[in-house]
Amino acid sequence: MPVTLKDVAMRAGVSTSAVSRTFTDGASISGKMRSKVEKAAAELGYSPNALASSLTTGRTKLIGLVSNNFHNPIFLQVFDLLTRKLQDCGLRPLLMNLSGEHDAQTAVRMLQQYSVDGAIVSSSTLTPEFSRLFRDAGLPVVNSFGRFSTSPDVHVVGVDNSECGRMAARTLVERGYTKVAFMGGPEAATSTQDRFRGFFQELAKHPHAKHSHSFAEEYSFNAGRAEMQRLIAAGGIADAYFCGDDVLSIGALSALQDAGLRVPQDIGIIGFNDMEMAGWENINLTTISQPIDAILQSSVDLMVSMLADPNRTPEVRLFPCKLIERGTLRPAPDPV
Amino acid sequence: MPVTLKDVAMRAGVSTSAVSRTFTDGASISGKMRSKVEKAAAELGYSPNALASSLTTGRTKLIGLVSNNFHNPIFLQVFDLLTRKLQDCGLRPLLMNLSGEHDAQTAVRMLQQYSVDGAIVSSSTLTPEFSRLFRDAGLPVVNSFGRFSTSPDVHVVGVDNSECGRMAARTLVERGYTKVAFMGGPEAATSTQDRFRGFFQELAKHPHAKHSHSFAEEYSFNAGRAEMQRLIAAGGIADAYFCGDDVLSIGALSALQDAGLRVPQDIGIIGFNDMEMAGWENINLTTISQPIDAILQSSVDLMVSMLADPNRTPEVRLFPCKLIERGTLRPAPDPV
Repeated sequence: MPVTLKDVAMRAGVSTSAVSRTFTDGASISGKMRSKVEKAAAELGYSPNALASSLTTGRTKLIGLVSNNFHNPIFLQVFDLLTRKLQDCGLRPLLMNLSGEHDAQTAVRMLQQYSVDGAIVSSSTLTPEFSRLFRDAGLPVVNSFGRFSTSPDVHVVGVDNSECGRMAARTLVERGYTKVAFMGGPEAATSTQDRFRGFFQELAKHPHAKHSHSFAEEYSFNAGRAEMQRLIAAGGIADAYFCGDDVLSIGALSALQDAGLRVPQDIGIIGFNDMEMAGWENINLTTISQPIDAILQSSVDLMVSMLADPNRTPEVRLFPCKLIERGTLRPAPDPV
Repeated sequence: MPVTLKDVAMRAGVSTSAVSRTFTDGASISGKMRSKVEKAAAELGYSPNALASSLTTGRTKLIGLVSNNFHNPIFLQVFDLLTRKLQDCGLRPLLMNLSGEHDAQTAVRMLQQYSVDGAIVSSSTLTPEFSRLFRDAGLPVVNSFGRFSTSPDVHVVGVDNSECGRMAARTLVERGYTKVAFMGGPEAATSTQDRFRGFFQELAKHPHAKHSHSFAEEYSFNAGRAEMQRLIAAGGIADAYFCGDDVLSIGALSALQDAGLRVPQDIGIIGFNDMEMAGWENINLTTISQPIDAILQSSVDLMVSMLADPNRTPEVRLFPCKLIERGTLRPAPDPV
């Protein structure tokens, strides 16, 4: 039988209300009373029940983790880090799977029904409308990996994807590739749109480089593979690709391998994210990393601040990306 | 502003109690009253709040998804399927990350604190004690991918891992490998223990086959790679390995590739699970698949039954495994 509040009150020789106040953030309780209760609770192995405490506080301590792509292995890292960081703050991670959900209103109803105190939206493929509607429904929202603007209407934590696109273009040009291409994720994803923009901004400074672009249907291995197969079949492929992210890159690599094209001798590939598999020696993908851990820690910190002050002005928190050199791009040519 | 119960009551011209009873499972309400309320709720876009309804029912509809390994990509599939299946039943998936947690009592307190109605333990590396203690705390528990016994003390849904071990041994012997080995996951995992037992039971029927075994530290790429590197360095490696699961196999493959050993010409590898990456053409792993979707559907069905009848007798539900032929084992020799 679970230990109840009543058991603790009896053991400590205090009222149940005193026990309840001890475990309610901000409730008034004397130091002496608190230590009596905490001693009894420790002896009995009592832990305050989140449901019971939510009656007092009106808070459930549930935070919705909103995701819509379970085919991109990066999300396993995201869930691992987010769940641990939320647990460390005494918050409870409620996983909300929006795969295939395109109606933001339905998602809002679901979050309300779920009684979450706030939502961390970890996606760049859900349109920004989702985060805005969550906020309009009165929910503290952080959009991790979302698009930032200089006048944000929700909190955004992530990277400057345009700058990452420029970094990819600079890298390909420096390596001497002259026919470069962007193979994006879904055209509607803000991350793809921003990496696209930065990539071609940078290429505009290098008029000798030929360029082209196309989009995969989603951020997944199968979509990356299918898109590269289509490009190979159509003929005249580029000599280097900046892929929308790592899982697309790995799909593209598999298609190139099947077609007998060698990487990086025939074709160069650069990915984005630096997910765990990119470092697997069987994959060995050159990529641009974003600091996932720092982004998620900052997202959780922001959520905690918003729970204390729901009217906090929306802010943008940006982190730098960096090039991770592995085996899918040829080295820079020797200086003459 | 979210629509409240009061708004629905006003629109329908009924009492708030009538609205509340309409949305409470099993509460008494006339058909006429119910349809009035449902019409008003639909018009206003009202959805009953889980916190409010849990006050009436004593149920939170939260189901703990208990996992402790976020380095095995199979869990992304598991989370995707489980969250969708729970959502379809109106249940809310609370992700409980027990990475690095070895004390079952701490985990029990956490689940109680989280006010879950039940727990689905998706792990073979948490000791069976975890599931038993969850049950002793009065929580409905299903152990997905757990070890079954003929007199189960908690519900188990999965496969017969011993039989899978026999299948792996039969396959390696049929392919003409004569020096075969088991490279398990962590020695304390019931899945590793059972696959080990079956594998060597079957080999006992083939006294001409030399055999050996070792264990990786955890089910992860890095552990599989490190263990295979150790075996190569020690000299005298086997000519075929049954690896504890796919992610270990992929780690092992990367070590073999680095050492210049060719698969399947020099060494054969067979994995277990058939996770998404096993089918990636860059990996192309021969493996034994377990029917993940069916196992998880059955786990959710069992949980729903237990919420209705907590005293349900513990049962075992087993599903068949099958060999998935890809590129890491040589073909069976031609019959003479």
